Amino acid sequence: MLQSTLATKTSKENPKDEHALNAQLLVRAGYVDKVLAGVYAYLPLGTIVLRKIEQIVREEMDRVGGQEIFMSSLHPKENWIATGRWESLDALFKLTSRYDNEYALGATHEEEVVPLMGKFIRSYRDLPFAVYQIQTKFRDEPRAKSGLLRGREFRMKDMYSFHTNTTDLDTYYSRVIEAYRAVFSRLGLDAILTEASGGSFSKLSHEFQVVTETGEDTIFYCKQCDKAVNKEISDRGLCMTCGAVGAPLRASEVGNIFKLGTKYTDPFDCSFTDEHGASVRAVMGCYGIGTSRLMGTIAEVTADEKGLAWPESVAPFSVHLLALPGKKADIAATIMTRVRSLYDQLTAKGNAVLFDDRDVSAGEKFADSDLLGVPLRAVVSEKTLASNSVEVKERKSSDARLVTIDQFLSR
Amino acid sequence: MLQSTLATKTSKENPKDEHALNAQLLVRAGYVDKVLAGVYAYLPLGTIVLRKIEQIVREEMDRVGGQEIFMSSLHPKENWIATGRWESLDALFKLTSRYDNEYALGATHEEEVVPLMGKFIRSYRDLPFAVYQIQTKFRDEPRAKSGLLRGREFRMKDMYSFHTNTTDLDTYYSRVIEAYRAVFSRLGLDAILTEASGGSFSKLSHEFQVVTETGEDTIFYCKQCDKAVNKEISDRGLCMTCGAVGAPLRASEVGNIFKLGTKYTDPFDCSFTDEHGASVRAVMGCYGIGTSRLMGTIAEVTADEKGLAWPESVAPFSVHLLALPGKKADIAATIMTRVRSLYDQLTAKGNAVLFDDRDVSAGEKFADSDLLGVPLRAVVSEKTLASNSVEVKERKSSDARLVTIDQFLSR
Repeated sequence: MLQSTLATKTSKENPKDEHALNAQLLVRAGYVDKVLAGVYAYLPLGTIVLRKIEQIVREEMDRVGGQEIFMSSLHPKENWIATGRWESLDALFKLTSRYDNEYALGATHEEEVVPLMGKFIRSYRDLPFAVYQIQTKFRDEPRAKSGLLRGREFRMKDMYSFHTNTTDLDTYYSRVIEAYRAVFSRLGLDAILTEASGGSFSKLSHEFQVVTETGEDTIFYCKQCDKAVNKEISDRGLCMTCGAVGAPLRASEVGNIFKLGTKYTDPFDCSFTDEHGASVRAVMGCYGIGTSRLMGTIAEVTADEKGLAWPESVAPFSVHLLALPGKKADIAATIMTRVRSLYDQLTAKGNAVLFDDRDVSAGEKFADSDLLGVPLRAVVSEKTLASNSVEVKERKSSDARLVTIDQFLSR
Repeated sequence: MLQSTLATKTSKENPKDEHALNAQLLVRAGYVDKVLAGVYAYLPLGTIVLRKIEQIVREEMDRVGGQEIFMSSLHPKENWIATGRWESLDALFKLTSRYDNEYALGATHEEEVVPLMGKFIRSYRDLPFAVYQIQTKFRDEPRAKSGLLRGREFRMKDMYSFHTNTTDLDTYYSRVIEAYRAVFSRLGLDAILTEASGGSFSKLSHEFQVVTETGEDTIFYCKQCDKAVNKEISDRGLCMTCGAVGAPLRASEVGNIFKLGTKYTDPFDCSFTDEHGASVRAVMGCYGIGTSRLMGTIAEVTADEKGLAWPESVAPFSVHLLALPGKKADIAATIMTRVRSLYDQLTAKGNAVLFDDRDVSAGEKFADSDLLGVPLRAVVSEKTLASNSVEVKERKSSDARLVTIDQFLSR
């Protein structure tokens, strides 16, 4: 993409109303913009990153047999009354249509998925299965000051599995833990499996936590077991596996999985006929990943004082190509032609390239490049062209090195 | 995909509360399910179709330089007050948070996109650009009885272009008309460019209308000009190009484009500095395509009495492979092994195959295949295997023919 045509621009100043590092950098770099407290719009660069994160999540859910669906955000009030959460879930947004229908705005989707998929569950032969969606969630959160880490409107992948019994659920639950590890690994995140409270869902749950000073949670990490326990269920931080005392760390939750049992199949009478003709309640698991929160977390843990530093897997571009044409008009024109040709060749080979073709100073180009955080910077100037070369530098490396254009093109 | 693992099932009976053909078929076939009047959940097969439609729309918007963004559904009340539509747009859903914030639920996004993108418009050099999103819209519609053709919650691609003057807008507007033609052509739809009222947006607009008996609009089609005019602006149906009287047809709108001028840049003071240093208001166009409505329209216009009949470009699978193992246990086992191997080979070659491996009657498999509407049906039975063949039939053809397995695999 030609940077001169990009609809957004970077900003030198931190937005006044953003306190979280992830939001400060993402807003300054033009990835997102705040619409309301806890509500963000994704701009062109941010949309690419969000879609890449969501595609990785999608691929790993597909790999464990998840079938993608897309449920609604307007939910019938009756469903939420059936589970008791119309009254008990404080964060539930409610709205009334001009025809006096009352709706809940989807804060989570147990109340929709159980009656929806329950229609297709008759016999034990219909189970197990898992369905997931990648969708916007709405929660009337009290605090919404952590940028993308806590939103009133945010993106989430939520998967729901249905089983004949808890043994089958346990087996699938373990497979999903491995799928989650694969997701976070592909995103370049070191996510710690953490035992936590089940909240309104179940007794216990598992979270995946990424260590970051601005995280909202405190976890006790046991190095021996490579596991943690959330402070909310263990004041003393004893490892639930080996009993050792864990090290307290600030962390941000990026995934959360629950064994729901029959908590939501009970109110909707979601049952199947077993091998002996008896009616048995289906058993459920649910598995969440906050994809917009992941974007904020990745931004926050990979950034340095100069700006963002995306891992290759989610970066909006692989290469940031900077043309430094200099001030002599004829030489500048020649340089721009050659860089444009290099850009065309790189793009034709399938590289996602952001080409800084703007008529701004070299200093501004370098500063913007650091802020935008594309993994590889490639600079072309009169000097590099003299040796038929490009000066390349990885975003977080301090070493820039010359490589010949031929070598660079063979990447 | 193995049909035995598909989380949904077909139904023989029409849903009682669906009057529109598209919804009857899509619900019976398990593509969607109704959550509320005008609100649908997309099941696994429907989600594939919806995503394919949206990907085609995305590719064509990218081709005319559209930059994808993703705005919020919660909008600040102030923005809607600024344009006067907080009061005037009856279909606007409003909600109040427990902290007394009032929000609009995104019915359309002019009120969000102008302040959002206006931040990046300073000089004439920053223009033109176009941004688009593919997102859920919410409208408190009075009638919601047309299945996916009119929803209270529906999917839409909305693009917004920003220009220095109306001549530049006119040029881009014409390019988008061609992009829309490309979208509808790839979707297998014959969409007629139709002059229509601008509604609350502008004086005149253009719609793309697909002729169907259950459409909500009446258009007058001029064969000479291959254009139409919507009845809402022309009782007598005179062609606005040649003046001839057009033929009245029932049609369903699948796209709608407007020259907004400064209607929405005025209230938000979205201006730029021109070449002479003067402050000038930016000029806008907006371009909508209802992607869930498109799914309903395609379903409706391609279906026959047996069921759905998707065009290849949006079909959930390319091939529906039916195994008819018969009743002799040993022969059946051999046949299933061979069909499974055929399925593996087809899939390995990149074909999207739905393999009906279920233990149900041949009649049920054929009926389901017609209802599901996969473009090509391939049947393998003891009889076809005797000649090392597969019996193939296009969904709407009455001719089934034998082709050798080798030929079939080379497709």
